[in-house]
Amino acid sequence: MEEDAGALPKKQDFSEWYNELLWRAEIMDVRYPVKGLYVWYPYGFAIRRFVYDRLRQLLDRDHKEALFPLLIPEQEFMKEAEHIKGFEDEVYWVTHGGTTPLDVKLALRPTSETAIYPMFALWVRSHADLPLKIYQVVNTFRYETKQTRPLIRLREITSFMESHTVHATWDEAEAQVESEIALSQEFYKSLCIPIVISKRPDWDKFPGADYTIAIDTIMPNGRTLQIGTVHHLGDHFSRTFSIQYEDKNGEQQIAYQTCYGISERCIAALISVHGDDKGLVLPPAVATLQAVIVPITIGKRRDDVLAAADKLKSDLESSGFRVKLDTRDMRPGAKYYWWELRGVPLRLELGPRDLDAGKAMAVKRTGEKTSIRLANAAEDTTRVLAEVADALRAKAEDGMKEHLCSVASMEQLNGALNDGKVAVVHWCQDRACGDKIEEQANSSILGTNVRSPYVQESDGPCVICGKPGKATLVGRTY
Amino acid sequence: MEEDAGALPKKQDFSEWYNELLWRAEIMDVRYPVKGLYVWYPYGFAIRRFVYDRLRQLLDRDHKEALFPLLIPEQEFMKEAEHIKGFEDEVYWVTHGGTTPLDVKLALRPTSETAIYPMFALWVRSHADLPLKIYQVVNTFRYETKQTRPLIRLREITSFMESHTVHATWDEAEAQVESEIALSQEFYKSLCIPIVISKRPDWDKFPGADYTIAIDTIMPNGRTLQIGTVHHLGDHFSRTFSIQYEDKNGEQQIAYQTCYGISERCIAALISVHGDDKGLVLPPAVATLQAVIVPITIGKRRDDVLAAADKLKSDLESSGFRVKLDTRDMRPGAKYYWWELRGVPLRLELGPRDLDAGKAMAVKRTGEKTSIRLANAAEDTTRVLAEVADALRAKAEDGMKEHLCSVASMEQLNGALNDGKVAVVHWCQDRACGDKIEEQANSSILGTNVRSPYVQESDGPCVICGKPGKATLVGRTY
Repeated sequence: MEEDAGALPKKQDFSEWYNELLWRAEIMDVRYPVKGLYVWYPYGFAIRRFVYDRLRQLLDRDHKEALFPLLIPEQEFMKEAEHIKGFEDEVYWVTHGGTTPLDVKLALRPTSETAIYPMFALWVRSHADLPLKIYQVVNTFRYETKQTRPLIRLREITSFMESHTVHATWDEAEAQVESEIALSQEFYKSLCIPIVISKRPDWDKFPGADYTIAIDTIMPNGRTLQIGTVHHLGDHFSRTFSIQYEDKNGEQQIAYQTCYGISERCIAALISVHGDDKGLVLPPAVATLQAVIVPITIGKRRDDVLAAADKLKSDLESSGFRVKLDTRDMRPGAKYYWWELRGVPLRLELGPRDLDAGKAMAVKRTGEKTSIRLANAAEDTTRVLAEVADALRAKAEDGMKEHLCSVASMEQLNGALNDGKVAVVHWCQDRACGDKIEEQANSSILGTNVRSPYVQESDGPCVICGKPGKATLVGRTY
Repeated sequence: MEEDAGALPKKQDFSEWYNELLWRAEIMDVRYPVKGLYVWYPYGFAIRRFVYDRLRQLLDRDHKEALFPLLIPEQEFMKEAEHIKGFEDEVYWVTHGGTTPLDVKLALRPTSETAIYPMFALWVRSHADLPLKIYQVVNTFRYETKQTRPLIRLREITSFMESHTVHATWDEAEAQVESEIALSQEFYKSLCIPIVISKRPDWDKFPGADYTIAIDTIMPNGRTLQIGTVHHLGDHFSRTFSIQYEDKNGEQQIAYQTCYGISERCIAALISVHGDDKGLVLPPAVATLQAVIVPITIGKRRDDVLAAADKLKSDLESSGFRVKLDTRDMRPGAKYYWWELRGVPLRLELGPRDLDAGKAMAVKRTGEKTSIRLANAAEDTTRVLAEVADALRAKAEDGMKEHLCSVASMEQLNGALNDGKVAVVHWCQDRACGDKIEEQANSSILGTNVRSPYVQESDGPCVICGKPGKATLVGRTY
């Protein structure tokens, strides 16, 4: 729907590259007339659909999907003091219905604890109702005053998956936190996105939580992007909303809870981690189109080639692949450029000579060329797409490894961050030292208890005070 | 999660039956603390998922899914005078972000024309961009002052499918209207819901449309429920929002549009049309569970029976069926009652004697008993579920036929409506006569150009003035 206007900015100019790519590859239209609200183009929305289908598949193993209202009455929203303090500046309020002022103001959910937990209080009666594991995928709202960015910092988060669980004991809730982390690892593995997991410092945990485990990835410019959080809520909310159960002895017990969220930032990461100077590079599992067939019809055997291309398309489609046959009246080179920009993982070129050899040239979006046999098209395509996914995952892992380093002083920390890295320092876990690390390096403490194959969990002297400290991830964040 | 409390009201007490069934079969929880907002239980949400998957499947044939923002700035919303007049009393307004008043008030979309069409004006440039066919499935909002009802009259419509198309000519838009009608017929056929289609009178068309075609079904109490509308928008909105294209001669032309909507009322119809005194009856295509296996383990061969039941479950699941094996420690009768309430289309009973015969007793939710062979479980289950769908469709068609009648006078019309029927009268299509029909029979004119196998399109004298009139559907509506 848009004119193509010259070359894409280089990926090393990350911000420019990201913004241009979003509309040129038809992911998002940023021209909607309200700051921080964006439109999903069909091409981008298809990626969103496949990504969230995958997430639902994983969740459905032991969670159930439900749906709660968007509008939260003021009195419910205000019940949990610590929680509301965390959100009060960024909540949108509905105050009128038609021209009538509402008796009770309604908040647009920034997250749904206060919509869901009054219902959980009704749903949970006995130990037999536990554990309760519910999720929903919904739009949520934040009145962001900082700079907004498509898919990253939004006023309408269009695709918030939030899971909420209730358990009989604190320990069971802790085990659930671990289970959600494992789910996230599996999810991001299927997107070929490397992640680093850590426990956020107390001042950065979810308002009302006992602790928060965060999942970050590292963007090409070295900034970290939080792409998932799991919160152990302890009994803060269950006390406020009276979520309790009768135990086996007939005694009333307070319940324990967790919540867990993933937003469309997962797609921002997908685009940013894998893309290159030519455009998007989509992992086959979630690609809008998994292969595009470009017939090379110069010369006489045009009809033969088109018939073979058509057959190849139906063979692949009947095996469940998402395939496009591009018969537009354009030069092949222009088509290559078009589909590379849009990240299709595999291009199949089919000309008279390929036809004679019973093959199609297979050009992977990750670079290599190979071929597939026309008589075994589905089998060979499965193999080649798996190779593309492996190549993507390996390249992304290399990127993560390169972006991580260990440092032993504030000077080294500043140097590393200025070089676009994320660093592991030792920190005594005192707030005062934490503040100094953040201020002096213009950075954020991402967390302790770091889980990454590239980070050694070691003890050492705090980079500020020299007292015994723990390995701590520090970076500049989105 | 809830205690079962005695028998369900009879379906002939329709309102009571409907409200009780919604929570007892775990479709909706109506206890959310804001009028007109409801919570989808997981069991109900699964039905919603299968129903909307089916709808998406049909739409994806030639529409593309996208996603537009919920919040519409006041100036865009106010652009189309006739349209805003239709909605001004029922729009929710966001006026504050945090404690800050917003510069521009934001409407929660009651429907998305004014959010989508400014973008269409950017997307449509040339005749090559047409036709454009986009849909989204979103939450929309109406500040309803009338009595609200779950799934029927809501303040948050949680599941609004709205399709928006752009065409080069008025005639092409008209053909699109017909195509959306055909899609709706196919959709409701798969839900086994009979429909009647008609052209709404001018005063009841969509604000800003050239004409509106409505899809109604008849509820058990004889009231009609509008479960879909297709609007020919002419060039009203395209003029307001400057949606135009360059034709083949390089001239700018104004575009023509349609829009089309289906909400969760389709699920209200599903529940109401098929349910009975025992509870839900779900069409197999969209049932949360398609079959439940109840092992009859009284006696010695408990382990054999359980092993066979387990194998039956995996055989059916590996063929793609949604199956539950109910091994709870309850009497079989209590289990039957439980799953009948929840509308599972097929119950498979497996005891020692069945095992010896290599069969399971198959009890259809529609009444009949038969059996399936354990060695051919998937094949036989496919057949039996198809029989359930056929029985449901036939019963529902009978219900539709019984509810429709033709009348020749206002007295007959009143009698028919009081008997819970929907009637065809002749009407001259004058507004004044239309108003009289509506007032004198406390009814609504649903429409002319009636399409139903049970209604004859005939001419005749207007039931009010005696002038030549057309067959017109009249009923009492939700």
